[in-house]
Amino acid sequence: MSSSAKKPTMKDVAREAGVALGTVSNVFNNVPVGREYKVKVEAAARRLGYSVNSYARGLRAEKTYTVAVILPNMVNMFFARLADELCQGLARRGYRMLLATTQFDAQAETRCIQMLRQNMVDGIIGLTYSTGQFDVEGMPYVSIDRVLSPTVPCVASDNYGGGMMAAERLIALGCRRLLFLRIGSTVIGETDKRGGGFAAACGQHNVDCTLKRFNDEGGMEPLFHFLADSVEAGGRLAYDGIFCSTDSLAHQVTTFLRRRGIGVPEDVQIIGYDGTRIFFTEEYVCSTIVQPVKQIAESAVDILLNWHQSRPSALVCLPVFYAPGGTTKEEVLPGGQ
Amino acid sequence: MSSSAKKPTMKDVAREAGVALGTVSNVFNNVPVGREYKVKVEAAARRLGYSVNSYARGLRAEKTYTVAVILPNMVNMFFARLADELCQGLARRGYRMLLATTQFDAQAETRCIQMLRQNMVDGIIGLTYSTGQFDVEGMPYVSIDRVLSPTVPCVASDNYGGGMMAAERLIALGCRRLLFLRIGSTVIGETDKRGGGFAAACGQHNVDCTLKRFNDEGGMEPLFHFLADSVEAGGRLAYDGIFCSTDSLAHQVTTFLRRRGIGVPEDVQIIGYDGTRIFFTEEYVCSTIVQPVKQIAESAVDILLNWHQSRPSALVCLPVFYAPGGTTKEEVLPGGQ
Repeated sequence: MSSSAKKPTMKDVAREAGVALGTVSNVFNNVPVGREYKVKVEAAARRLGYSVNSYARGLRAEKTYTVAVILPNMVNMFFARLADELCQGLARRGYRMLLATTQFDAQAETRCIQMLRQNMVDGIIGLTYSTGQFDVEGMPYVSIDRVLSPTVPCVASDNYGGGMMAAERLIALGCRRLLFLRIGSTVIGETDKRGGGFAAACGQHNVDCTLKRFNDEGGMEPLFHFLADSVEAGGRLAYDGIFCSTDSLAHQVTTFLRRRGIGVPEDVQIIGYDGTRIFFTEEYVCSTIVQPVKQIAESAVDILLNWHQSRPSALVCLPVFYAPGGTTKEEVLPGGQ
Repeated sequence: MSSSAKKPTMKDVAREAGVALGTVSNVFNNVPVGREYKVKVEAAARRLGYSVNSYARGLRAEKTYTVAVILPNMVNMFFARLADELCQGLARRGYRMLLATTQFDAQAETRCIQMLRQNMVDGIIGLTYSTGQFDVEGMPYVSIDRVLSPTVPCVASDNYGGGMMAAERLIALGCRRLLFLRIGSTVIGETDKRGGGFAAACGQHNVDCTLKRFNDEGGMEPLFHFLADSVEAGGRLAYDGIFCSTDSLAHQVTTFLRRRGIGVPEDVQIIGYDGTRIFFTEEYVCSTIVQPVKQIAESAVDILLNWHQSRPSALVCLPVFYAPGGTTKEEVLPGGQ
């Protein structure tokens, strides 16, 4: 989005690409054309620095001061807080936030990318689990929690470090039969490193650990079956420490175990991940690895809005911290924080 | 947004208003001009059906398929769910959602209205407590939870009915010393009817009730002081049933009382308002009057997108229901639901 004195026109793009003017127009208006033409036209437009709507819009400035934010939903409190911080961070810098949630519509991401191509938004910040192929190479796109490619910057919490922290805390609290539980999308993201960090720290301390990963297609049933099968004769659970990949999962596992008469934290200590608080007052819903939501949002916004000034790192991992929340035994261990 | 064959130009507006072309341009670009000129130009533009950017944008269709949604924040789970449902409702109808939160910036609403005037969005759905004056008369603006004027449609839950429901439930559960607590903005909104409905039902049943309203400027301290002062000799609270205007407040009051050794629900039964669930799994955070969030969102979207087809009611109140959530004694009363 440099402001050169003379702006390239659609005709210039047609000449540069060696195609008819109508073909250029079709490509920019998303009328289907041969793949080969599309590639040629887009490459020519990129070379010339041509932006579609700055031509069509005439009087409008090139910048829209609008950023599209793509999140799975607003029902998960982590996503809601992220939306809140992104909205504030963008507003402070004079930008508007176009919010798309993918829950309802797998095409949301594709449509946002199309808006970006048509200069209807200045950039995208996306946290998605979509399995589709998006070509966002070179576009102002910042990913959260998932590395899309080495050239698309990604911002996440230090998931690996957080996993290690959870293991070390459970071990310090006396746990020796550790379990990692994860349920979620089959798409690999940064959050998968939580289990990796957990296993690494267990290994370092010579403590056994079991890693169980469930995908969310089967719902919670397979995970609950596994837990029910882990109850040994005498009603004792085979594990005395569980690290859950999210607070939501930790909360559900806690409820499930308590209903079966297994005490949390008396019999099993549980740590989640996210730092979810009820009504954002003082309490965490469970003992948890707290994500720095505000810093994640600020970093994503800064990287996006400084797109042309600096080449960002491929991955920014922001520090997490541990907070007790009633599902671990801090109060009875004087050594605990 | 009618699509007449020949669109009026800025010159037409200048002629119609009897002012210079530059004045028209200033008004539409928000350059300050005398109030009298502004009124003339806007009236002329309205008469001619002139829309600012359809002229400037040239090739773009008149509709933007974008709706601005204004909410206080995303941290309150009720607002987050509302954003979620509005985003889905708009997406299903082919519309995008521009989300503005007012927490950071009191000017958010004014800026959204400006975008609407400039045809950058097709309409606004707003839930705000701003004290500023907005002129949204005749504009596609749907208000949630607050009647702005008799001609601006408003969608809300049945706050008065919900308040009555809370009183009737507490009385049916054996409470005879009732208290209504509210903390929030000094701006009067639909949600203030919660206390009114509560008091009316108490009166109907000849049960005494105390209404205490706190504004949020002083934080929670004055409310907590009041509660502390309500503890009688012997450690008993002067009330045995409390209706809180939100689940967030109910949760904080429950925590406050339990820390002082007052049992909830044993000594005091508490009902909140909203229907907040932890992680949107099965549990409510407290006994609560549940708002129909999805229906509120759908109604607001329908009213907005059918703006030109039908003249909507001034106020649509959607039905609520009661759900027990651990802060009332349903389980020990066979008559309870």
